[in-house]
Amino acid sequence: MTTYNLLLLPGDGIGPEVMAQVSKVLDALGRAGIARFETETDLVGGASIDAHGVPLTDAALARADAADAILLGAVGGPKWNGVAYDNRPEAGLLRLRKDLGLFANLRPAICYPALADASALKRELVEGLDIMIVRELTGGVYFGAPKEITVLPDGTKRAVDTQVYTTGEIERIAHVAFDLARKRSGRVASAEKHNVMKSGVLWKEVVTAVHAAHYAELELEHVLADNCAMQLVRRPKQFDVLVTDNLFGDVLSDVAAMLTGSLGMLPSASLGAVDAKGSRKALYEPVHGSAPDIACQDLANPLAMIGSLAMALRYSFGLGEAADLLDGAIKDAFAGGARTRDIAAPGAQAVGTAAMGDVIVAAL
Amino acid sequence: MTTYNLLLLPGDGIGPEVMAQVSKVLDALGRAGIARFETETDLVGGASIDAHGVPLTDAALARADAADAILLGAVGGPKWNGVAYDNRPEAGLLRLRKDLGLFANLRPAICYPALADASALKRELVEGLDIMIVRELTGGVYFGAPKEITVLPDGTKRAVDTQVYTTGEIERIAHVAFDLARKRSGRVASAEKHNVMKSGVLWKEVVTAVHAAHYAELELEHVLADNCAMQLVRRPKQFDVLVTDNLFGDVLSDVAAMLTGSLGMLPSASLGAVDAKGSRKALYEPVHGSAPDIACQDLANPLAMIGSLAMALRYSFGLGEAADLLDGAIKDAFAGGARTRDIAAPGAQAVGTAAMGDVIVAAL
Ligand SMILES: CC(C)[C@H](C(=O)O)[C@@H](O)C(=O)O
Ligand SMILES: CC(C)[C@H](C(=O)O)[C@@H](O)C(=O)O
Repeated sequence: MTTYNLLLLPGDGIGPEVMAQVSKVLDALGRAGIARFETETDLVGGASIDAHGVPLTDAALARADAADAILLGAVGGPKWNGVAYDNRPEAGLLRLRKDLGLFANLRPAICYPALADASALKRELVEGLDIMIVRELTGGVYFGAPKEITVLPDGTKRAVDTQVYTTGEIERIAHVAFDLARKRSGRVASAEKHNVMKSGVLWKEVVTAVHAAHYAELELEHVLADNCAMQLVRRPKQFDVLVTDNLFGDVLSDVAAMLTGSLGMLPSASLGAVDAKGSRKALYEPVHGSAPDIACQDLANPLAMIGSLAMALRYSFGLGEAADLLDGAIKDAFAGGARTRDIAAPGAQAVGTAAMGDVIVAAL
Repeated sequence: MTTYNLLLLPGDGIGPEVMAQVSKVLDALGRAGIARFETETDLVGGASIDAHGVPLTDAALARADAADAILLGAVGGPKWNGVAYDNRPEAGLLRLRKDLGLFANLRPAICYPALADASALKRELVEGLDIMIVRELTGGVYFGAPKEITVLPDGTKRAVDTQVYTTGEIERIAHVAFDLARKRSGRVASAEKHNVMKSGVLWKEVVTAVHAAHYAELELEHVLADNCAMQLVRRPKQFDVLVTDNLFGDVLSDVAAMLTGSLGMLPSASLGAVDAKGSRKALYEPVHGSAPDIACQDLANPLAMIGSLAMALRYSFGLGEAADLLDGAIKDAFAGGARTRDIAAPGAQAVGTAAMGDVIVAAL
C-alpha cells in the first residue's frame, strides 16, 4: 500500500473544525486499505500570525514544498484587520500559491439535484449545472509590480497595482483548460476584457493560438468578462470549462459557486506544473472562506473540505476510484438527509460538523 | 421655455433605432411645453470608424463638450474586430468618458414588478429590487499607464495594464455615492479587494475617511468584490447604494443588471464634476450593448434609451417632474402589455422598436 504525505493547514475560523473531519476520513481510507496517509499539521494565516508573527513561516513553506499534497482550510478574519498589509492572513495563502507555482486553480461549480432548490436561481436554470472554472492563480494583478501606495507632494496618496501576463503564463493555463475540456464536453469559454485591457488582448491571442495548434477539434468561445458574469446568471448551463485570469477568476468563480446554492459543498484544487517525474505540487481547499461568525460552534459544513480531499485523491494520487467513492459518500450523505445548517432542507434534521464527518466515515 | 442642447450619438448596432425613439419623445416633450430641445447628431464607435477612420473625431468631441448633455446609443460589433486596438469602437466611448471627465457612472438596477418573472432569480429575491451602483469611470485599470504589450527577447510577449487610484479620485466618487444615499435609504456598500490590491487598501481607507468626516449619520459597509458578486446573487436586496471602482463596477453592475430580468430596460448616467456655474458634463446611455445580432430588425427595446433621456431630464436639466412623467409612461407602457421581444410576456402581443416608441409618446 502506497504511503502519501499530506500537509494539513487548517488555518482560521472554521478551518480547524472542517479539517478535523478530513483526518477522520483519512483514517477510514487507511483502514479500508485504500492508501496510507502520513499527515503533518502546520499553521497558516491568522493562526500563524498569532504564533509566529507572520502568516506563513519558512518552515511551513518548506514542509508544504516537501509534501505530496497540501490541504488548506481557510484563512483570515476580522481579528487580523489591523495587521500590516504584507503580513495579513491572506499573504500566507498567496505565498503558498506563488512560491509553489500553483498556477492552475480548478473550481468545479456543481449543482447537486438535492440542493437545487437552495439556489437563488430558478431550479431549471441550475439543475444539473456542472461548470469547471480554470483560474490562473500565480499571475495578473495579484502579483505584478509595482504594487504600492505612495504619498504625493500634496500629502494625498496614489495606489498602484499592476496586471501582468506573459505568453508563457497564458499558454500553460490554456493547456490545462483544453486538456480538461477533452475529458468533458469539449467546450471552452475564455473570459477577458480585450476591449479595455492589453492583457486581455494578449490573453485572447494566446488562447486562440493554443487552440488552433493543439486542440482544433474542441470548441472555443471568447467572452468579455462583464458579459460572462451576466451570462453566468442568465443561463449558466451554457458553460462547461471556463478559463480566465486571476482577478476575473476570483469574481466569476464566486458567482458560479453561489449559483449552485451550496457554497459549503464546493472544493477546489490549485495545481503546479508537471515535473520530470510526472508529479506536480498541489493544494486543495474549499471555495468557502473562514466564516468566523460560525466558527467553533459545530455549524460549519465539512463537505467542501472533504470534497477537497477527494480532489487530492484524484489529481495528486491517481486514486480516481477512491475519489469516486468519497464523492459518492458525500452525495449519499445529503441525499440521505444529513444536512448541516447551510444546506438545511425543510423537514430534514440538521447535523453538526462532527456528525457530518461521521456520516461520511460511516458511508465509506 | 428653456432650450436645452442635446448631442445624440446613436453609434452602432441597435443604437440608431433606439435613438430614433428618443427623437420622437423629445418632440412630444416640446409639444407638451415641458422644454425645448435642440439636438445635433454625430458619429461614434464603428460608425465613426467607417466614416472617418477613428471612433470619435475631434469635432464630435468638441460638440460633446459644448452640449448640455449627450445621449449615446451603443458602440461596437464584430464588424470592427480587426481594427487596431487604439482605434477600436470602444475607444470612442472611453475617450468621451475620459476627456469630458465623466467620473461618476450611475447604474440603477431596478426590478419592475411586472417583469420580475423574467429574472433568472426567484421572484421573491428580486421583486422590488432597487440598487444604485456608483461606478468610478475615468480611473483604474481602464486608463492607467503603462498599458502595453512588449515583445520579450525570446520573441514571446508581455502585456501590462496598470490600476491607479489617487485619494482625490476616490474622494469624489465617494461623495457622489454618499450624496445619493442621503436621498435614498442611507446605506452605502463599498466594494474592493483590499486583501490583494493596494488600490483596494487606499479605496477602503479614503471611503472610510469621507464617511467619518461628512456622512457619519449614514451606514457604510465594506465588502470584498468577490463576495459582493456572490451576495448580489444570493440576496441582492441587501444592497442599496453600491460604490466601486471602474473594473469591478463593470462586472458587478452587469451582474446587478442581469438580476432584474430586464437588461433592455436599464439606463445609466455618466456625470462630471459640478463646475462654478453649477452645471456638469453628462452622458446618458443604456446599460445594454449594441446587440448587432438583432440590429435593424425593429426588435430592440428602446426603453433603456428612453429611460436614459429621463435620467438626463432629472440629472442635467433639473426637470424632475418631466422625468417622473417619462418614467411613469415607461412603466405604464409595459404594465399595459406593450412588450418588445426581450421582455415578452406569455399572452402579451410583442411590439417592435418603433411601435414601443409610439406607445411612450401616446402615454405622454
Ligand atoms: C483570500 C483571498 C486572497 C483569495 C483570493 O482573492 O484569491 C480568495 O478570495 C480566493 O478566491 O481564494
Ligand atoms: C464597451 C466597454 C468599453 C464598456 C466598459 O467596459 O466600460 C462597457 O462594458 C460598459 O460597461 O459601459
